[in-house]
Amino acid sequence: MSQEMLIVDGLQYSNWSREIFEQMREGGVDAVHATLVYHENTRETLSRLGEWNRRFEAHGDLIMPVRVPGDIERARRAGKVGIFLGAQNCSPIEDDIDMVAVMRDLGLLIMQLTYNNQSLLACGCYESEDSGITRFGRQVIREMNRVGMVIDMSHSAERSTLETVELSERPVIISHANPASFHPAKRNKSNRVLAAIAESGGLLGFSAYPFHLRNGPDCSLEDYCDMIARTADLMGIEHIGIGTDLCQAQPTAVLDWMRNGRWSKEMDYGEGNASNAGWPRPLAWLRDSRDFPNLVAGLRQRGFDEASVARIMGRNWVELLERAAVPTPAEEAVA
Amino acid sequence: MSQEMLIVDGLQYSNWSREIFEQMREGGVDAVHATLVYHENTRETLSRLGEWNRRFEAHGDLIMPVRVPGDIERARRAGKVGIFLGAQNCSPIEDDIDMVAVMRDLGLLIMQLTYNNQSLLACGCYESEDSGITRFGRQVIREMNRVGMVIDMSHSAERSTLETVELSERPVIISHANPASFHPAKRNKSNRVLAAIAESGGLLGFSAYPFHLRNGPDCSLEDYCDMIARTADLMGIEHIGIGTDLCQAQPTAVLDWMRNGRWSKEMDYGEGNASNAGWPRPLAWLRDSRDFPNLVAGLRQRGFDEASVARIMGRNWVELLERAAVPTPAEEAVA
Repeated sequence: MSQEMLIVDGLQYSNWSREIFEQMREGGVDAVHATLVYHENTRETLSRLGEWNRRFEAHGDLIMPVRVPGDIERARRAGKVGIFLGAQNCSPIEDDIDMVAVMRDLGLLIMQLTYNNQSLLACGCYESEDSGITRFGRQVIREMNRVGMVIDMSHSAERSTLETVELSERPVIISHANPASFHPAKRNKSNRVLAAIAESGGLLGFSAYPFHLRNGPDCSLEDYCDMIARTADLMGIEHIGIGTDLCQAQPTAVLDWMRNGRWSKEMDYGEGNASNAGWPRPLAWLRDSRDFPNLVAGLRQRGFDEASVARIMGRNWVELLERAAVPTPAEEAVA
Repeated sequence: MSQEMLIVDGLQYSNWSREIFEQMREGGVDAVHATLVYHENTRETLSRLGEWNRRFEAHGDLIMPVRVPGDIERARRAGKVGIFLGAQNCSPIEDDIDMVAVMRDLGLLIMQLTYNNQSLLACGCYESEDSGITRFGRQVIREMNRVGMVIDMSHSAERSTLETVELSERPVIISHANPASFHPAKRNKSNRVLAAIAESGGLLGFSAYPFHLRNGPDCSLEDYCDMIARTADLMGIEHIGIGTDLCQAQPTAVLDWMRNGRWSKEMDYGEGNASNAGWPRPLAWLRDSRDFPNLVAGLRQRGFDEASVARIMGRNWVELLERAAVPTPAEEAVA
């Protein structure tokens, strides 16, 4: 595969608009993993898919859907931004194993098994204890493997993540988080988890969400790129990428939905608190997708060679999808 | 309260028909806790409620709904069978705390926090490990306490049950199960759990489902009544009742739904196994509701006095509902 520069952002959830798609193009972004849903159930997920269908229709000159990994290269050649969809919780499948294949057919390439709380499948990183993968969870992992839906453990707890790597026959990813050694946070990951993700053939997408960063919104580009370099040493240069977690132009109501869903009568502030309840201030060097060249420059400055920069900025994401987001060939499937 | 005989069956799930309602009357049954749903989601639960509305309309000479505990006495005086509805899983509320009050308004008096598997609230008795009550679960327990929806832990795992008793400010019940000391089974309960249920002011309903009984379908009435006597010594005579788990005239498809819901691609045999996959053979002395007098006779034979027989056969269930199935008075509610 060519190591020519190609930029993939492994997680964004913005208040999508033509302006935001134009910013992606301006920043040289070739593909974005867009969050489709947080807590939406099956029926609501179909409506979110319908909204994306309308966006692809209205902005077909700027964006196109990524249904198979090769679509990213096709988008790039067409001068468009490829959008691949993921769910941050397993709510789209509700309690129904058959919804895995249905959602994959509809273009859901990635799904988290949990979002902070206990799910029917696994435990989230905000629960006090984690008893690992449930009976239903074991079946869902097998089914996601079969249909080629990538397992994302970004918001999951440690034991559930390690067990998922054990159970999954395909790579497991963390689309957006950072090493806890860089900044301790419930959402950041231990070296043990990061090593297991790499071992699985998976990938870590480095988050630029201030709650996941040393010095929060004042985290420097130098510190961020140094974190990347240290993680490359731990995980290997093939297993790291970007997953900015950019959430542009979203009202606080969306933050409340992410944090509280429908499960809480009290306000749950997630990574914030009562005195810091809103969206964090963005990084000065990554205000929106137009700033991706800053990141490329920072990696070069840190001493990465061009092939490594290309891997981190996007090639690894493409290769990951090729390994994990295609269905198991029928002849290999075991009944 | 009068200790006059009054019969309440704390769990049935039959293929409801006029014939079955007539059998209840013939057996002297004054009220039945009828399972409304196993794994039905919010919308499906509304359809099951609609079906009950139609039954109450079509068979209003035989049955009437129990919306408040006093309705049981009203049904008795009217010569009808009172039906109170319960859910065997928390699926009716999906991921939505507000559905607790909505379902209570619709007449759902009892809800299990789990059915064998991990739920969003707690752990079921078929999972290999139990990490206790989840973040969402803590809020649901508080809300069920507030609106007067009885918490039933029949299919839950041990730690989750003990934590629920700790967290709940109202009695917690096990509507249908037996002591594990009588017959070891995943669904039967340890003495520790039974003592905690009694301590909470709750109740155990003795199951007559053969998988929960010593010698299965050949369990003798004498052994069954001896189990009741021993449990009365452990829990106290106020904390025991009947919960037969009678499932009459149900096709195997219903058993499959109970066991597998939508979560499994493989057949899960629950308490059975591949060579014993169907409904168990019924007890000779409790074929259907007409046989309740056998149970009354068995308890007398075992030496229970009339007041105790009346308690076990139904009075305790009525008192339990008076303690646990009425809303918290507004003046006592804490914000």
